[in-house]
This record gives sequence, structure tokens and C-alpha cells, in this order.
Amino acid sequence: MPKKIFFTPGPSALYFTVEEHLKAALKEQVMEINHRSAQAEAYYRQTEENLKALMNIPADYRVLFLSSATEIWERQLQNFVTQKSFHYCYGAFSNRFYDFATDWKLSPEKAEAPFGQLPDTNPDLIPSDTELITMALNETSTGVAFPTESIYTIRQKHKEALIAVDGVSALPVTDLNFSMVDSVYFSVQKCFGLPAGLGVWIVSPRAIEAAKSKLQSGQSIGSYMALPNLVKNAEKGQTTYTANVLGIYLLGRVAGDMLEKGIDTIRHEARYKSALLYHTLEQHPELTPFVSEKHLRSQTVAVANTSGSSSVIIDALKAKGLVIGNGYGQYKGKQIRIASFPTHSKEQIELLADLINQL
Amino acid sequence: MPKKIFFTPGPSALYFTVEEHLKAALKEQVMEINHRSAQAEAYYRQTEENLKALMNIPADYRVLFLSSATEIWERQLQNFVTQKSFHYCYGAFSNRFYDFATDWKLSPEKAEAPFGQLPDTNPDLIPSDTELITMALNETSTGVAFPTESIYTIRQKHKEALIAVDGVSALPVTDLNFSMVDSVYFSVQKCFGLPAGLGVWIVSPRAIEAAKSKLQSGQSIGSYMALPNLVKNAEKGQTTYTANVLGIYLLGRVAGDMLEKGIDTIRHEARYKSALLYHTLEQHPELTPFVSEKHLRSQTVAVANTSGSSSVIIDALKAKGLVIGNGYGQYKGKQIRIASFPTHSKEQIELLADLINQL
Repeated sequence: MPKKIFFTPGPSALYFTVEEHLKAALKEQVMEINHRSAQAEAYYRQTEENLKALMNIPADYRVLFLSSATEIWERQLQNFVTQKSFHYCYGAFSNRFYDFATDWKLSPEKAEAPFGQLPDTNPDLIPSDTELITMALNETSTGVAFPTESIYTIRQKHKEALIAVDGVSALPVTDLNFSMVDSVYFSVQKCFGLPAGLGVWIVSPRAIEAAKSKLQSGQSIGSYMALPNLVKNAEKGQTTYTANVLGIYLLGRVAGDMLEKGIDTIRHEARYKSALLYHTLEQHPELTPFVSEKHLRSQTVAVANTSGSSSVIIDALKAKGLVIGNGYGQYKGKQIRIASFPTHSKEQIELLADLINQL
Repeated sequence: MPKKIFFTPGPSALYFTVEEHLKAALKEQVMEINHRSAQAEAYYRQTEENLKALMNIPADYRVLFLSSATEIWERQLQNFVTQKSFHYCYGAFSNRFYDFATDWKLSPEKAEAPFGQLPDTNPDLIPSDTELITMALNETSTGVAFPTESIYTIRQKHKEALIAVDGVSALPVTDLNFSMVDSVYFSVQKCFGLPAGLGVWIVSPRAIEAAKSKLQSGQSIGSYMALPNLVKNAEKGQTTYTANVLGIYLLGRVAGDMLEKGIDTIRHEARYKSALLYHTLEQHPELTPFVSEKHLRSQTVAVANTSGSSSVIIDALKAKGLVIGNGYGQYKGKQIRIASFPTHSKEQIELLADLINQL
């Protein structure tokens, strides 16, 4: 059977070099070496270096490797919040961070919008004593993008609070000014085209200080996964636990491939592919882009309402070997979601658009 | 360069079928499929089924997939303990569980022994109001094995408490009666010979009830990774987050290979390899088994004191392509640690013993 092409919003198609890197990993015995060996430390440092170069991350920020973005939601609450966090909620994933804070018996506040829209980002609506402000660059469930300019405006107004940015299906395609925020995280099965099982957490010096302050005030910030411990080990190119060394290795290799291609080229292609996809969705009689405000449309995850059951178009494409995503949660059966990640070539997106046009 | 053979106590040599399963995974696009697809659910169920068959796990116990044993230490404290846990502490890893409870501001108690020895396992020493009793089947830092019979004696005396067993470098080689305990966990880079990045947590119905009771009493047991949520998703063959689907797939395949070989054969070989290794260590003029009481010696991780620097023997073996482990923590440079996991053939252990004899 020929392989399918996955346009699902994560897990998605592997980055096109992953198979070759997996073979190299077997040869270098990446999966067998000790996670505290010089060889593993070199992988950690190379991956950190490549990510910093690729996304222009300030030198004094730390790159940490955890298991998933889900874990990093918890770690941020543990380390940064004693009582008050503020969450922009506009879809399944941005809502979830708020829900975590509730489950952890904190006192979170939020600004909400219906699925497909963005909440009011006026920074005056955020209480001045908020410890942590959270938003998702890309709401993967709805295809809404949070404009980076709005983040920088919030930063100007709230200099004391930490700002945490969910970059899950946006980075490295979205051009984020890391120096304006304190905590950025993503998982690797989206834009980086890697097998799931690794979360990346990038923290500012201020974020690290905030965790230390909370600890010094006598509160628990967790144990081995407490931020000061993670940072202490990261300085040695190590994790506090036996990490997914293969995942770190593959991420470093793929980030290196992206550097070679050039982030500008990747972003340029993303704009082209996105424009083509939304044009296709707009022209199709049975499809309507879910996000009506064009400047809020994600470049990497396009979502559309279907006039009938979404399974018709999903199944028709699957029969041709192309797998697209279903609507999320209550939108299952009513929407389609299409990823155009860096591994998806212009030609693949053109093929997909052609096939959609023919349906 | 020819590949090295890793006898390190984890990460260690890959199970000898892993490379072939990785190729199959690429072909089946295991790393690209949605983690909530029927295909991923089938992998989850197959892995659960194979693990249950391999280790004779009761049908009503649940098999859950997390990121590491380190994470599972935290999850157990979150879900099972409101105040009092009791920990057998006799090495770096068994001590760590106690340290986690301290970091989480609980009130743990412990029974301690110096490295290389076992604490007094008299169950009368455990306070009767203890909520959770913990021990490691194999203390990977020292090579001390906790006799399963002692666990069953503790069970008889403490019927109310939950018993949590760290099976990290012991399972599936150690024959554990799961019905006598409530929470068993291990990571896959030891006896299962898999790349790190997956932790397996097996829980009894009583353990699940304990977590629900803690939640109902108004306390936080975490969020998406709270045990009732994990169990609810496990019933559908799913995780609560985007799991390491490749890891779950590979574990299922390797557990299947082990079933085919037969657990009795694996355990029989383990006894032979272990006897040969300890004999070799005892005969060597420069080496002395660290664990003096023979019935406490681990079958899968043999530890020996070296009369001089341990780097002499480690480097000599490395020059021949065989990688053994160094002493842990303060014993680095003073001890060697040798894994004999199921992937290590009798011939490989004989080769290693021969080379040690010649040093």
C-alpha cells in the first residue's frame, strides 16, 4: 500500500528528513547511550543551539526538554503561580490551561471568545496583580491566531506579570519576539514533523527568578521537575530524568535542516501555502473558512465549516491517500482542519487544493 | 566503526528486534497517525494485552502510559497521599521517592539502610495510618533486590495501605504477584530494551478508588494526568495527552516477542546469566560484589566494588566494544554496574565474563 500523506494538525506528516535521521540514530546508537554521557550532552547542546538560531531566542533564555505541552501547562502553574493567572480562552487548548489552573485549586481569571473568534485583547482587562498571562499563538482546535503585536501591547502594560505563549502548532513558522515574553512551549509533532513524546519549554531569566521566589516563600514548586532543577541540569546539557534522547536528537537534526533551508524561506512558503488553502476553501461551494476575520487566520492550521457532514470530504481525500483532520470536539463531523506545516511542500498543498477543487 | 554492546543499567542495549520494529513503524506510519485514531487505539490495546499476558497482571488492573518513572513518582503522591507515605530507602532511586514526598510538603516516613543493604522489612515498623508504602524491586544504583516475599508479608499486615512497587530495572524478569500490590511502574529503557521516553503505570481498582476518594474530599489530584482521567481515557485505548505512540507501539511489539520466547525461558536465562556474572565478580582479584547478602543480589543489575579506579576496567572493556556502567553518584569511580537484561544473550554475557576474567 502506498504511504498516506498526513495533513492532520498534529501528529502530522514526519519532516521529510526524519527517516534518514532515524537511520543515523541507530548507527550512532542514540537510543542506547547513557542520558548523562558526553554524547547525549552534545545532542542536547546542539538541539538548544539550533532552536535558538532558528527562532532567534535570546542567549540568556533556557531551552528545556519535557514530555509534552500538557506537562508544561502543569509545570508553569507549579512554578509561576501562587494564586492568580489570567488566560485568553478561545478554543479547546487555550481553555485547557485555564481548566488546569482550576483543577490545581488556583484562582484563575479569563477573557473568553466563542470558537473561531478572539477575545478582546485590551490589556486593561487584565487585573494588575496577575502573576501569569497565557495565550496560544495558534488555537489548533479553531485555527485562530493570536496576533503577536497584541502580545507586545500586553507586555507594555503588564511589566510585572510573566507572559506564557503556547507555540504548539505555530513555531517556528510564526515570527515571535521571544524577548517580549517569558515562557514559550511547544510539542514537536506539529510544525517540526517529529514523533510525539517531547515537549520543549523555553524560559526567560525572569521566569526562572519567579520560580525561585515562589520556592523561597515556602511553597512547593514540585520536585525534580521544578524549574530551578531543570535549569541547573540544562546548564550541563542534561535533564533531571531519563529523557527522550532520541526525540532531542531528532529535533536537533530537523532544526538544523530548517536552518539550512532558511527560516525566511520556510515562512515565505507558509504564506503561499496558507493563501492557496484559504482561497480554495473560500471558492468551494460546500466549504467556508471558520475564522471570518482574515487577520486572525492561522497560517499553519486552516479550519473550514462543511455544509454537510465533514466525513464526505475527509473520506474522499483519504481514498486518494491524503489525510486531513476532522473538526475538534463538538465540531467533529461539521468541520475539516488542514495543516500546512514546514514539511508540507508547495506541491503537496497544490495537489491537496486541486483535489478539494474537484470534489 | 563496529557497534558497541551496551551492558549499562539503562538506557542499555536495544532489544534485538527493535530495529526491525522501527522499520515496520515507518511503514505503518505509526509516527504520523492521530493519537486518537482507531489505529493508535489498537496499538494501545495490543500493548496492554501483551504486558498483562507477559507479567500475569489481573484483568481488572489498568495499564497506563506516561512519560517516565520520574513522572509516576509524582503522580502517585498526587493521587494517593494526603499526608503520610512510608518509603523503603536503600539507594539513589528508592530515596528519591521519599525526597519527592518531602518536596511536595507531605509528611513521609522511611526505613533506611546504607547503600548495598536492605532496611529492616518487618511490617510492624510501618505506622498503621500510612496511606502508601513504597519499595523498589531492584535498587538500580546498588544492585539490591527487595524480596517479593517481604512485600507479600507487608501486604498481610497492612491491608488498608496502598503498596507501590518500583519495577524499573526488574520487570518483567522478577516474578511479581501483581494481585498483592496496587501500583507498579517502570520505564522501558531497562529490561524492555527500548528507547527512553515512556513510563508504564499499572494500577489496581483499589488504587483508582483511592484517587477518587482524595478528589471527593476536596483536594487536588492534578488535572489531565489525574488517575481517574487517565483511566477513563485508557478504557478507550487512549491517553489524556498526545502520547509517545511510537514508544507504546514498540513496547507492544517487544512484549509480544518476549511472549513468543516465553517468560519462563527469559527468567531461566536471567538466573544463568546472573550466576555467571556474580561468579566472575567473586573470582576476580580486583572485584568484590557490592551486595554481600546473596539472596539480596539483583538478577538484572550486578554491582561490584573495584580495588582501584573503576575506570581501568570500564575503559579496558570499552576498548573491546563492551560498555558497562560506572558506580552511581558517590560510587562513581569506585564501582562498576553491569546489566544483564533480556536482550543480553547468554553468549554476550559469557563474552563479557571472559573478558573480565582476562583483565
